[in-house]
Amino acid sequence: MDIQLAEPPLYLKLADRLSAAIASGALVPGGRLPSVRQCAREQSVSVSTVVQAYRHLEDARLIEARPKSGYFVAAAPLRKLQEPDTSAPPTESVAVDIGSLSERVMQLAVDPAYISFGAACPAPELFPQERLRRAFSRAALRHRAQLCQYPLVPGEDSLRRAVARRALAMGCTLDPRDIVLTNGCNDAVGLCLQAVTKPGDIVALESPTSFGFLQVLEALHLRALEIPTHPRHGLSVDALSLALSTQPVRAVLAVPTLANPIGASMPLAERKRLAQLLAQHQVPLIEDAIYNDLAERDEHRRAVKSFDTEGLVMLCSSFSKTVAPGLRVGWVEAGRWTTPLRRLKTALSGGHTSITELVMADLLMQRGYEPQLRRLRQVLARHVDEARGLIGESFPRGTRVTDPQGGMMLWVELPPALDSLALFKACLDERIVIAPGTMFSATDRYRHCIRLSVGGPWGDVQRQALRRVGQLAQVLLRARLPLAA
Amino acid sequence: MDIQLAEPPLYLKLADRLSAAIASGALVPGGRLPSVRQCAREQSVSVSTVVQAYRHLEDARLIEARPKSGYFVAAAPLRKLQEPDTSAPPTESVAVDIGSLSERVMQLAVDPAYISFGAACPAPELFPQERLRRAFSRAALRHRAQLCQYPLVPGEDSLRRAVARRALAMGCTLDPRDIVLTNGCNDAVGLCLQAVTKPGDIVALESPTSFGFLQVLEALHLRALEIPTHPRHGLSVDALSLALSTQPVRAVLAVPTLANPIGASMPLAERKRLAQLLAQHQVPLIEDAIYNDLAERDEHRRAVKSFDTEGLVMLCSSFSKTVAPGLRVGWVEAGRWTTPLRRLKTALSGGHTSITELVMADLLMQRGYEPQLRRLRQVLARHVDEARGLIGESFPRGTRVTDPQGGMMLWVELPPALDSLALFKACLDERIVIAPGTMFSATDRYRHCIRLSVGGPWGDVQRQALRRVGQLAQVLLRARLPLAA
Repeated sequence: MDIQLAEPPLYLKLADRLSAAIASGALVPGGRLPSVRQCAREQSVSVSTVVQAYRHLEDARLIEARPKSGYFVAAAPLRKLQEPDTSAPPTESVAVDIGSLSERVMQLAVDPAYISFGAACPAPELFPQERLRRAFSRAALRHRAQLCQYPLVPGEDSLRRAVARRALAMGCTLDPRDIVLTNGCNDAVGLCLQAVTKPGDIVALESPTSFGFLQVLEALHLRALEIPTHPRHGLSVDALSLALSTQPVRAVLAVPTLANPIGASMPLAERKRLAQLLAQHQVPLIEDAIYNDLAERDEHRRAVKSFDTEGLVMLCSSFSKTVAPGLRVGWVEAGRWTTPLRRLKTALSGGHTSITELVMADLLMQRGYEPQLRRLRQVLARHVDEARGLIGESFPRGTRVTDPQGGMMLWVELPPALDSLALFKACLDERIVIAPGTMFSATDRYRHCIRLSVGGPWGDVQRQALRRVGQLAQVLLRARLPLAA
Repeated sequence: MDIQLAEPPLYLKLADRLSAAIASGALVPGGRLPSVRQCAREQSVSVSTVVQAYRHLEDARLIEARPKSGYFVAAAPLRKLQEPDTSAPPTESVAVDIGSLSERVMQLAVDPAYISFGAACPAPELFPQERLRRAFSRAALRHRAQLCQYPLVPGEDSLRRAVARRALAMGCTLDPRDIVLTNGCNDAVGLCLQAVTKPGDIVALESPTSFGFLQVLEALHLRALEIPTHPRHGLSVDALSLALSTQPVRAVLAVPTLANPIGASMPLAERKRLAQLLAQHQVPLIEDAIYNDLAERDEHRRAVKSFDTEGLVMLCSSFSKTVAPGLRVGWVEAGRWTTPLRRLKTALSGGHTSITELVMADLLMQRGYEPQLRRLRQVLARHVDEARGLIGESFPRGTRVTDPQGGMMLWVELPPALDSLALFKACLDERIVIAPGTMFSATDRYRHCIRLSVGGPWGDVQRQALRRVGQLAQVLLRARLPLAA
C-alpha cells in the first residue's frame, strides 16, 4: 500500500525521460529527435504514446516540430532548468498544524516596505483601477437603497447570471439559481468542506498544496492526505485511485488548473478520468477554479465539473486573481449539496454587501473583460519567463523550477541541504519576501523548496532581488557544506 | 435538577407580583401604592428591595412617582396587556434542527409584495441613505488602490479604532489591535463558537432565542441548552448557574440587551453576576451586543464584558441595525481567544472589502451618528407603543405581550390553543409576514407565540395589517374550540 508506486500515464513517463535527456545534455539543443516510429520501437511503446509525449514536450517548449523535417530539441535557455519530479508525500493522512508562518508571509507580502514574491496575486497596477472606481460610484448611486437592506444568501441575481455565463468557458452549464456568492474562493471552499465532512475526516489534496487549504483543514479539524502531484500534469489520478480504494477519504480538494504552488494543469484526459473515478467511489470533489482564466491553453480552462454527471463536483472560484482582489467576490455551485451549502452560508455568515456584487456584475458584463484577461496573461507570462531566466543564472547548481502554463507562480526545488526557512529569514533581512516550502504541506517534505510569485510589480528592483535570493541560497548552502563534511 | 426552580432576584419577583396586581385590576389606574416602608413590612422584604422594585415598575411606565406624594399606578393603557412569564424550556440540551421555515420568513420579510413584521431590522427609510451613498463614492475615490489589493484579517485600522471608541459607551476599553472585523454579527458569533467548541458540545442560550443562533448551532453540530429567560430582565443567572453546575456547558451565547425575540434587557447587577459566574466556572460568554445602541436606558448599553476581568467574554456586534444593514460590517473582540479567532477568520473566509469598512469608519467619525441614533430610537419607540395598543385592541383575550425598553421587537404569547404556524400561513394568504414562535427554539415550546417586528415602514397599511393578524388569530382560535370540546 505504497502510494508512491502509483504512476502517471505512459506518455508522461516517456516525456519525463526525454526531458531528462535534454536537461542532461544527452539530446543537444537543435539536435533532431528520433522519429515517432523509431522512438516507439526503441521505447517499446505505441506510436500514439510517442505522439502524445512529443506534443507535451512541444507544449513545454522543450522541443519543436519543423514541418516535413521532424522534431528538434529547442534552442537552449540561459541554463537548462530541470522541472521537479512528481511529489512523493507520505501515504498516511496527517493532522494539520500550519502555524503563524503563513500569516506572517501574507502580511509582509502586502507591506510596501518589502519586495514581495510572497502573494499569489497580480500587482494592483495590473487591474483596471479607474474602471473599478467608476463602477463603484455608479453602483452606489443606482442601488443606494440596497445599502439599507439586509442582503440575503445566495446573493445578487445579476452577478449569479454573469457567473453562469462565464462558466460556459469552463465547459459548464450552470443554473444561476444554484450559484451561491461568497467572500472570495476561501469562503466557498470552507463551506464546501463543512457541507461534506465532519471533524476527523480525511480530505485528499495535491502535494504540495495551497497553505490556505491547510489552514482551513486545520480550522475544521480535518486530516490531510497528500496525493503525489506532477509539476506539469498535476494530481496523479492513479495515486488518488489507490488512496480512494484503501482509505476512507471523504472529499477531494484540488486545483486542476495552475495548482498553487506547483503551477500544474491537468491534461484534459486526466480531468475526465478524475470525474469518472469520483463517480465510481461516490466521493465529492471540491474544485478550486480560481486560476482557470489565467491558463494559457483553452483545454486547461475546462473544469472537471464539465465531466461530472452525478453532481459530485462542487465548483468554486472568485474574481480576486483576474478583476479585483479587493472586492472579495467568490462563488460556488455545489452540485448535489446546493441546498445544504446555501443553509450553511446563511447560518455561518449571511449575505454580502450587494454593492460589491453589483459592481462585479457590471464589470463582467462590459466588453473590456476579455481583453483585460488577455493582457493580464501576457504580462504574467513575461514575468514568469524572465524570472525563470534569472533563476537559471543565479540560483545554486541542481536547482529545479517548474514551467507553468499560465499564472504567476514558480515552484523552486533547491538542493536538499537548503533550509528554506533559513533562506526566508535571510531574505527578510534584506526586505525580500519569499514563501518557504514548509508552508505548503502538513509534512516537512518541502523544506528545501520555495514558492516565488512574480505577479507583483516587475522591474529592475525585482530582478535584482530575485538574483539576491539565489545568492543568499548559495551562501547558505556553502555554510552548510563544512558541517555536512 | 429542575432548572425551572431557579428564580430571579427578590426585587424582580416583587415587581412581578405588583405588576400582576395592576394587570388584574387589584391596583387601579391612578390609585396610590403602599409606601416603601409599608410594602417592605407587608411583603417581608427589605426597604431597598422595594425601592428597586418600584424603580423597575417606574421604568416600565406601570407606576409613577409624584414628588412628596408617593407612588401611583399609571393611567391605564387601552387594554391592560400582561407580559409573558419567565420562559420554562426543558432542562436537557437538544440537537438543533431549524428547517427551511426561517429561510422562508427571511426571504418574504424583504419581499416588497408583502407587509412585513418579519425582519428584525429597521426600515430602509430610517437610515441615512444619501449620506451612505456619498461616503461610498468618497471612499472609492480616495482608496481606489484598495480595490486591487487583497484585504487582510483583521481589517481596516481606521474602523477598528472607531469601534474601540464606540465600545467606550458599553463600558469597555478595547485595544483596536484585538478587534477583528467580520461579515456582520452572524459571522462573528459563528467564529467565536468555532473557537471555543467542538461538534457535540453544549451551548447555553436564552429561551426563546434568535433563530440565527439556532441555525449556527445546527451548522456546527452543537447542542442547545435553553435557559429560562424573563421577558423583561432576560437570562436567569440563577438558572444558568444551576446549569453550569450540572451539565458540561462549553459556552454561553447571549444577548443581554434587547434579546431577540423577547426584547429583554438584563439589569446591571445581573450583568455583573453573570460575569462573576463565568469566572467561577471558567466558561466563555459570546455576548451579542448588536442591539445595545438601541436600548432606551444607559445601563442597558453597558456590556457584560465591562465586568469581565479574565478575558472570558467575546464581544460581538455590528452596525446592521443602526447604520446600514447592507454594509454587513460586524466585529468581535474575543478576549483570550483573540489569536485563534483571527486565525479562524483567515482560514475560513479571509478579509472583507476594505471599501465598506472605510465607509463605516467615515460614517462613525461624523458628528451625525449620535443624533441619527437618537432619532432612530424615538421612531422605534413610537412604533412599539402603537403596536402594543393595536395588539391590545384586536388580539384574542388572554394574549400577553412584552414591553421592551428599546428596539423594535414584540414577543406575543397567544392563548395556548393557538398554532402560530397556522396563523403564519393564514397571514401569508393575506400577504402579511409574521415570525411564528417555533422558529425561536429547538423545542416546540413556543408554538402559540409569535414575534412581531415593527421597525419596518409604519402607516395605516401596517396598522390595518396588525389588526388583521389579531382577527385571524381570533378566527383560528374559534375554529379550534369545537374540536377541543
